Amino acid sequence: MFFASDNAGPVHPKVMQAVADANQGYAMGYGADAEMAKVRTQLRDLFEAPDAAIYLVGTGTAANALALATLGDPWQTVFCAPTAHIHEDECNAPEFYSGGAKLTLVGNADKITPDALRTAILAEETRGVHGPQRGPVSLTQVTERGQVYSLSELQALTAVARKFGLPTYLDGARFANAVAALGCSPAEMSWKAGIDAVSFGGTKNGCLGVEAVIFFDPAKAWEFELRRKRGAHLFSKHRYLSAQFLGYLSGDLWRDMADTANAACARLAAGFDTAQGIQILFPPQANIIFADMPRALHQRLHDGGATYYITRGTLEGDDPDEPLTGRFVCDWSIQNAQIDRFLDLLG
Amino acid sequence: MFFASDNAGPVHPKVMQAVADANQGYAMGYGADAEMAKVRTQLRDLFEAPDAAIYLVGTGTAANALALATLGDPWQTVFCAPTAHIHEDECNAPEFYSGGAKLTLVGNADKITPDALRTAILAEETRGVHGPQRGPVSLTQVTERGQVYSLSELQALTAVARKFGLPTYLDGARFANAVAALGCSPAEMSWKAGIDAVSFGGTKNGCLGVEAVIFFDPAKAWEFELRRKRGAHLFSKHRYLSAQFLGYLSGDLWRDMADTANAACARLAAGFDTAQGIQILFPPQANIIFADMPRALHQRLHDGGATYYITRGTLEGDDPDEPLTGRFVCDWSIQNAQIDRFLDLLG
Amino acid sequence: MFFASDNAGPVHPKVMQAVADANQGYAMGYGADAEMAKVRTQLRDLFEAPDAAIYLVGTGTAANALALATLGDPWQTVFCAPTAHIHEDECNAPEFYSGGAKLTLVGNADKITPDALRTAILAEETRGVHGPQRGPVSLTQVTERGQVYSLSELQALTAVARKFGLPTYLDGARFANAVAALGCSPAEMSWKAGIDAVSFGGTKNGCLGVEAVIFFDPAKAWEFELRRKRGAHLFSKHRYLSAQFLGYLSGDLWRDMADTANAACARLAAGFDTAQGIQILFPPQANIIFADMPRALHQRLHDGGATYYITRGTLEGDDPDEPLTGRFVCDWSIQNAQIDRFLDLLG
Amino acid sequence: MFFASDNAGPVHPKVMQAVADANQGYAMGYGADAEMAKVRTQLRDLFEAPDAAIYLVGTGTAANALALATLGDPWQTVFCAPTAHIHEDECNAPEFYSGGAKLTLVGNADKITPDALRTAILAEETRGVHGPQRGPVSLTQVTERGQVYSLSELQALTAVARKFGLPTYLDGARFANAVAALGCSPAEMSWKAGIDAVSFGGTKNGCLGVEAVIFFDPAKAWEFELRRKRGAHLFSKHRYLSAQFLGYLSGDLWRDMADTANAACARLAAGFDTAQGIQILFPPQANIIFADMPRALHQRLHDGGATYYITRGTLEGDDPDEPLTGRFVCDWSIQNAQIDRFLDLLG
Repeated sequence: MFFASDNAGPVHPKVMQAVADANQGYAMGYGADAEMAKVRTQLRDLFEAPDAAIYLVGTGTAANALALATLGDPWQTVFCAPTAHIHEDECNAPEFYSGGAKLTLVGNADKITPDALRTAILAEETRGVHGPQRGPVSLTQVTERGQVYSLSELQALTAVARKFGLPTYLDGARFANAVAALGCSPAEMSWKAGIDAVSFGGTKNGCLGVEAVIFFDPAKAWEFELRRKRGAHLFSKHRYLSAQFLGYLSGDLWRDMADTANAACARLAAGFDTAQGIQILFPPQANIIFADMPRALHQRLHDGGATYYITRGTLEGDDPDEPLTGRFVCDWSIQNAQIDRFLDLLG
Repeated sequence: MFFASDNAGPVHPKVMQAVADANQGYAMGYGADAEMAKVRTQLRDLFEAPDAAIYLVGTGTAANALALATLGDPWQTVFCAPTAHIHEDECNAPEFYSGGAKLTLVGNADKITPDALRTAILAEETRGVHGPQRGPVSLTQVTERGQVYSLSELQALTAVARKFGLPTYLDGARFANAVAALGCSPAEMSWKAGIDAVSFGGTKNGCLGVEAVIFFDPAKAWEFELRRKRGAHLFSKHRYLSAQFLGYLSGDLWRDMADTANAACARLAAGFDTAQGIQILFPPQANIIFADMPRALHQRLHDGGATYYITRGTLEGDDPDEPLTGRFVCDWSIQNAQIDRFLDLLG
Repeated sequence: MFFASDNAGPVHPKVMQAVADANQGYAMGYGADAEMAKVRTQLRDLFEAPDAAIYLVGTGTAANALALATLGDPWQTVFCAPTAHIHEDECNAPEFYSGGAKLTLVGNADKITPDALRTAILAEETRGVHGPQRGPVSLTQVTERGQVYSLSELQALTAVARKFGLPTYLDGARFANAVAALGCSPAEMSWKAGIDAVSFGGTKNGCLGVEAVIFFDPAKAWEFELRRKRGAHLFSKHRYLSAQFLGYLSGDLWRDMADTANAACARLAAGFDTAQGIQILFPPQANIIFADMPRALHQRLHDGGATYYITRGTLEGDDPDEPLTGRFVCDWSIQNAQIDRFLDLLG
Repeated sequence: MFFASDNAGPVHPKVMQAVADANQGYAMGYGADAEMAKVRTQLRDLFEAPDAAIYLVGTGTAANALALATLGDPWQTVFCAPTAHIHEDECNAPEFYSGGAKLTLVGNADKITPDALRTAILAEETRGVHGPQRGPVSLTQVTERGQVYSLSELQALTAVARKFGLPTYLDGARFANAVAALGCSPAEMSWKAGIDAVSFGGTKNGCLGVEAVIFFDPAKAWEFELRRKRGAHLFSKHRYLSAQFLGYLSGDLWRDMADTANAACARLAAGFDTAQGIQILFPPQANIIFADMPRALHQRLHDGGATYYITRGTLEGDDPDEPLTGRFVCDWSIQNAQIDRFLDLLG
């Protein structure tokens, strides 16, 4: 009954097998491996983007920070949601990689609205050289609270950015879960919706540690390569990153795993809906649920062996009825039996 | 009738004379000039801080960015008001000098309250290594909206910072105006109120371009010197910075000029109070007024030859009654006659 | 017949098995995995350093850049050999991670001598605040040209550094090969020789991509953790880094692989010695040989299927007798039969 | 008898007067002052460059670091002489402003030769993404040792840079002295010789503290403005920088002062030539002499009241005949009588 994070589960056997398959003889390093050539071709096909520049890195933070630094300038500000991973959970990596850019928090909600984005952009750079300049827009899909932007929502947001001449980056650490939730194609959820660069996460969805970064305009490719190397994110034995992605892409494994995780989450949400005293906070459209429940119930789940984060409040406290917020994340490996056992604890 | 900024007025003749006086023969450069030795002694006396480390730089942004970088670390976040100059008007200089630190905006108001500060600090660094770490607190005195923290307000704010082990920096671009407004001593408004480092601005108050940066704990002195040099803010002909400050300190000229500017502002505010349709937005405690007045009135002032910034709305617009916000800043050189002529325009 | 690099060979099956073994159920992320606890204990035992702070990263450049940034300051200069990886092959990663520190090249040789180090240190920072300040000393063991510092050489170098109050970092991308060559213990080649921090490379010696960074004084531990996270080098599924190291340490596999690679290199060197027209450039003490041979011989090796880098000159050229320099690196997986087949090509 | 530096002398009265003249009433800040408009026009005329982008900053290090950062990228290396101010005397400011670029020292001499430049450029970036990329070439005119590149030497150097697609920056802290020495026009010594950006120093030649930075291609103008502001080098009371330059340019004062300083230096050199035991080290073409003389002679000069730096060796020492190197710099204000008095001390 492990719902702490989708980066805590095991690697899918097919991904592990792909890594083992790559472990034959010698291979050129630093991205010149034969596996990477295949990954590049397959991702270009998958994204219907024959000219896209495609790179692999080992962490989601590297993908975000390197991509945003490539799209923007140090004297700019990046527009993002207040809940964005780049703001909350990367220990200033975007600021570091960009050389000191700022992050402007857009609105007060987990999902950015076009109006909030327009307001935030208009509020910046009305002071000439004095204020930070307007920089990239960063969207997170699936959001940190488990919500999914619809294709039309994405299009409306990128339209605002484009009107101001700003590029849009999509933090796709859970790109697969969002594609699965929307039932769309990767192209529809990226460049066809106006996205300029995207990360396609593998780590949270059954890989060891790999994220693809895709620039639909290859003009920034060489700069990204230099930034990746300078950031120490170019792996010498690159084939083991490539191999993960080969396994991940093979037979649409990425989508199958995302479907599985999303379905598990839906099963969990359905159980929450029918339980007493549980309040789901955001529409759980992919593989994450935030829900309020009384301290006593959290304690019962905890005592019963469930693992997840309490993101507001603590188990320590006198009032058993005080609502605490829990975050429940399902990965590809969670079993229905585990979910049902967990739901049984709800009483 | 010039109220656009206190950095637009002339240099006081006594400051200019001090610069001319320094222009004799040869002098060692880079801060080893005889004038700087005097400045150091006089400022230590003025601040009742015999061990303080004291440096001069040419711009307020340099003072802020260098001091905050010295007090904090790149992986931290600086706590400041949403209106702070370091956030709004320095084109990411604090982020640049710190090596990529973040700024956390405290509350929604121009003046930070202890509660808002505590809340903001508590909200950061609950995620271990993942989030930005808590860093320096930056207060602005006089605030950007023309308000002045009382000594007890400053003490309450630094007490919160100290409770979390955080240093407090005072952006004193208008330090003199605040001291004049409070009728206190520089020591009372700095280290006696719990401030760890302060800038004592000269530029906005009758100098050509000079700010003193004062660390009450000299342990950071050498690091600051290296940061200043590396930031290209160590002047070779340093005596011309020192001389400005000698003139500025001579006979408490700094305080006289601040008194004059504050009095001019009070005269302006009194005129606003008695005029029709003008709404002063913040208590104008020093030398800055923000006031709403109808577009038509702004137009009349404009046509009459007044110069100031409209910070919300524009003169272009159909509705003559729509309130626009104007910012009115008085410097040491403004004449009562100018103010009265301006007030006459109000009708 | 692959001698291009020791990062081109396969992963040892035992390392791969350790990764597979770790792939069971859920694990806490970001270094809180059970495997990392074991790695920490085992490395502390191996280095006889019960208080050492120990971290894993994915690339050697990350290890170098993060460690040096932690040991030094942005206004300093790092002393290193002109052939050092940090200078030649990291696309300014040390400069980036340090926030703009400089690298001072010590002497003209691949191995730094105490005299050259002293001279270089004395030449820096004689200009007060104007020049770069003296910073960490970085030694590479095995050097980039395949040489090994003896323990007494290391001691003499760290003694010079210590005399000036400078910390010494050991770039140990090939730490295992050096330990194997010297027949010493890891402790003898690190803290007992005066080294303050060391990287213990796994990637070039049979792992997928992992390097341990070890600080013998744990005071810098938390700063390193923050730098690693901010640099996007903290892996969420950290157990797959840890597992590599568990396999690597198990049964002294790391030393066995290094012994094998070194022995292969010695076999190659012996063949070079007896061949006509080949000039070995540096004493090949570990697993790397640099050798001059005529263009025609390079062409013959090339045509025969050997893969290695020519580091001076090119195959294109008219003079068959012109000496070109080749670099030959042996990894753990090279077979004697391959070496012998290669040597047969020498004629 | 002050020869320590040309930044130690007084400001020319005409420059001081221009500053006083500017001190009338209100002026828009941050470079929007009327004086700056005149400076821009006059400098475009002087440099025969009607489209040039022109900015003022307060220090030579700011000019260098900002210009090089604008011309290059963080993953590049700047080519410069080993004696360059940017390498020796700016405490890593170029590295800081560029975001971590490297400096590659070209050759072993104070003046760069085309062959040495070509060799240094060819040696870099032969390793694809691994090494630093080739970046701007930085030349210093007058050099740090007092030499002057001829126009044809400059042309030959910029031709090498241009062949590799690299921009060339001219550190013109002593631009005036070099123009005076060559008897050429500013245009001939800059864009007509292939220079892309130049600093035209005022500080060392009779101003308080001001340097013009000129980009002959205005495409980089806005980036430079943002970098200047972000670096805290945009002065609010900018008119006092502009006014210095107005005085400096008026009636070719800049050239007159340079002529005077150069002539003083020539008088000094002539005296050295006829004295016993003095060895001039570089052809003193402008206003700087480096010369070896016995310790005893240095001591006699010292005792006689001369002020200058000994750059090799120290007065403390037993051997009166040991040659020590002295640096002698003449500024515009040095009097022939002072020089003659000094020469008299030579005996």
